[in-house]
Amino acid sequence: MTREEARCKLEEYRVRIDDLDRRIVELLNERTRVVEDIGRVKRSAELPIYEPRREEQVFENISQASADGPLTNEAVRRIYERIIDEMRMIQRVRMEGRGEN
Amino acid sequence: MTREEARCKLEEYRVRIDDLDRRIVELLNERTRVVEDIGRVKRSAELPIYEPRREEQVFENISQASADGPLTNEAVRRIYERIIDEMRMIQRVRMEGRGEN
Repeated sequence: MTREEARCKLEEYRVRIDDLDRRIVELLNERTRVVEDIGRVKRSAELPIYEPRREEQVFENISQASADGPLTNEAVRRIYERIIDEMRMIQRVRMEGRGEN
Repeated sequence: MTREEARCKLEEYRVRIDDLDRRIVELLNERTRVVEDIGRVKRSAELPIYEPRREEQVFENISQASADGPLTNEAVRRIYERIIDEMRMIQRVRMEGRGEN
C-alpha cells in the first residue's frame, strides 16, 4: 500500500470513528438522563442511592454484551467504572445544588 | 410516591439502562475494530501510530456531540480518555504479539 492509498483509507476510517463517537456520546447522555430519573425516584421514596448489587448486575450485563470482543472484559469494565463514576458525580452535584435552594 | 411504586419505576429504568449499555458496548467494540484497521494500515504504510492532532479532533467531535448535555464537557472527555487509552493498550498487545511470531 502506498502512503497516498494509506492516507485515503485512514480518512475513510476516521469518518467512521467520528460517526461512532457521536452515537456513543448520544447514548451516554441518554444513560445520564435515566440515571438522573433514577436519582429523583430514589430520593422521593427515600430509597438508598448506592446499591452495590445493582452495580454488579450492570457489570454482568456489559460483560455478556461484550463476550465476542475485541475489547477484553477487563477493558470494558475499566471504561464502565469511569462512566459510572462520572454519572455518580453529576448526581452528587445536582443533589448538593438542590440542597442549597 | 410509595416505595412499591418507586420500585416499579426503578425496574423500568433499569431495563432501559441495560438496553443502553448493550448498545454502548456494541459501538465500543465496533470502534475498537476500526482502530485495529487503522493500526494495520499505518503499519503497512509505515506511518506514525500516535498523532496528537488527530486526538484533538476526536475530542472536538465528542464535545460538539455532547453540547446539550447533561454530561459536562469534562465528564465526556474523561470517559473518552479512558476509552482511547484502552484501545491503545489493545493495539500495543496485538503489535507485540505479532512481533513475537
